Amino acid sequence: MPFEAQYYVYWSETDAAGIVHFAEFFRLVERAEEDLYRRAGVLHVHGSLPRIEAHIRYRAPLRRGDVARVVLALDEARRRAIRYRFEIYNDSTGRLAAEGYIAAACVEFSGGEPRAVECPEELYRAWRGTDI
Amino acid sequence: MPFEAQYYVYWSETDAAGIVHFAEFFRLVERAEEDLYRRAGVLHVHGSLPRIEAHIRYRAPLRRGDVARVVLALDEARRRAIRYRFEIYNDSTGRLAAEGYIAAACVEFSGGEPRAVECPEELYRAWRGTDI
Amino acid sequence: MPFEAQYYVYWSETDAAGIVHFAEFFRLVERAEEDLYRRAGVLHVHGSLPRIEAHIRYRAPLRRGDVARVVLALDEARRRAIRYRFEIYNDSTGRLAAEGYIAAACVEFSGGEPRAVECPEELYRAWRGTDI
Amino acid sequence: MPFEAQYYVYWSETDAAGIVHFAEFFRLVERAEEDLYRRAGVLHVHGSLPRIEAHIRYRAPLRRGDVARVVLALDEARRRAIRYRFEIYNDSTGRLAAEGYIAAACVEFSGGEPRAVECPEELYRAWRGTDI
Repeated sequence: MPFEAQYYVYWSETDAAGIVHFAEFFRLVERAEEDLYRRAGVLHVHGSLPRIEAHIRYRAPLRRGDVARVVLALDEARRRAIRYRFEIYNDSTGRLAAEGYIAAACVEFSGGEPRAVECPEELYRAWRGTDI
Repeated sequence: MPFEAQYYVYWSETDAAGIVHFAEFFRLVERAEEDLYRRAGVLHVHGSLPRIEAHIRYRAPLRRGDVARVVLALDEARRRAIRYRFEIYNDSTGRLAAEGYIAAACVEFSGGEPRAVECPEELYRAWRGTDI
Repeated sequence: MPFEAQYYVYWSETDAAGIVHFAEFFRLVERAEEDLYRRAGVLHVHGSLPRIEAHIRYRAPLRRGDVARVVLALDEARRRAIRYRFEIYNDSTGRLAAEGYIAAACVEFSGGEPRAVECPEELYRAWRGTDI
Repeated sequence: MPFEAQYYVYWSETDAAGIVHFAEFFRLVERAEEDLYRRAGVLHVHGSLPRIEAHIRYRAPLRRGDVARVVLALDEARRRAIRYRFEIYNDSTGRLAAEGYIAAACVEFSGGEPRAVECPEELYRAWRGTDI
């Protein structure tokens, strides 16, 4: 079962077109990812997961006061990286607002420079079951 | 010839890993897009170009104080949308930091709701020559 | 009784020092203000309340994963402006993270330019009782 | 002579009122502070200067495409902290957009926790002369 979380849309996320700025969608998705790790008790894993790829299709705008429901599902678990799909629904209008995927690598920061490592077991455990 | 613009990386763009946050890369790219329109004297067109798709691959980190060089090239000009490719170079290290594309639709905001329209001629003109 | 709301601190709010960036504190405070208006059923008033002054003292850092509790209390209700005090507690450490005030004017946007007007009754109603 | 720097205002800095969001003003001011340190060749000092206080009065809006000129002047140099005043002019309209001050402490991060220390001489040197 995918992971789901709901967030209100706030003023500071909007731009002069009166809708959520396109880059803010990624902050929304990452927020849900962090909440998934928090649920699993492994929030600390998130700091060693720099993004390596992201894709998004915007389907409908989000506006201040709308309820954004972010749905996350594991897409692919590799040895040194994971990829998950996301959907953002505007629960105030019932429409799909955006969908896409994010891939992240497992790294250690040694001397400030990220170095690829095998992903920790607890990362896979946090995502377990979301892909069904 | 692609359009190029350079920007310093600032503290507020970084996150707790000490590198530029992945969502901030899209703000950087959009900044260059706006500077391209400004050069062409048509900055106003940008407000009617909501994004419909974005893709990015992260290649190397950007750090505070680094010089980010954003390179933009028209990829596809359609009747009601455009797509452009971007590369972000870290001129402080000589490495490619990220690359991807952004697609945007031409719209009018009638009653707050975006409505697809034909792109204005001045939009194509602003991008002319960047694809060579 | 002051208004209170709790928010998790997320990764994108941090900077390279590993703590919440100082400008993000204002986004946190505004989020609580919007939630206060939402509770009162008058969220729409917030869009016509441009800030005219803000002050903050930073007392202790907030880190990713911490629970920030924002406390708001009406400070002064004038005919064309309001001012409220805020405190941000780090509920994960028990420490006061920041405190200050924000003042906002009541305006109408006529032709894009803000024009001072008398504040609507529902604005005062939303804040009623928070100053006790 | 105060330090001055000019920045274009970009789309992602605006909010649904069509003007720069109030929290973004602090990012603008910090950008100028970083450029002051860069000019003095001491950009690295900025990472050990967490803010302890900030105050701002908003005078007039900034809009996308406007040129913001940020003016910084040292206000007070103490042993373990500095305070500087800022003014932000909208050079596209000739109006003062905002003014205020920011105070920052000199710290070392030992074990992640900031500890107050004496400010480095190069910090004072970077600000020298801006208060005249």
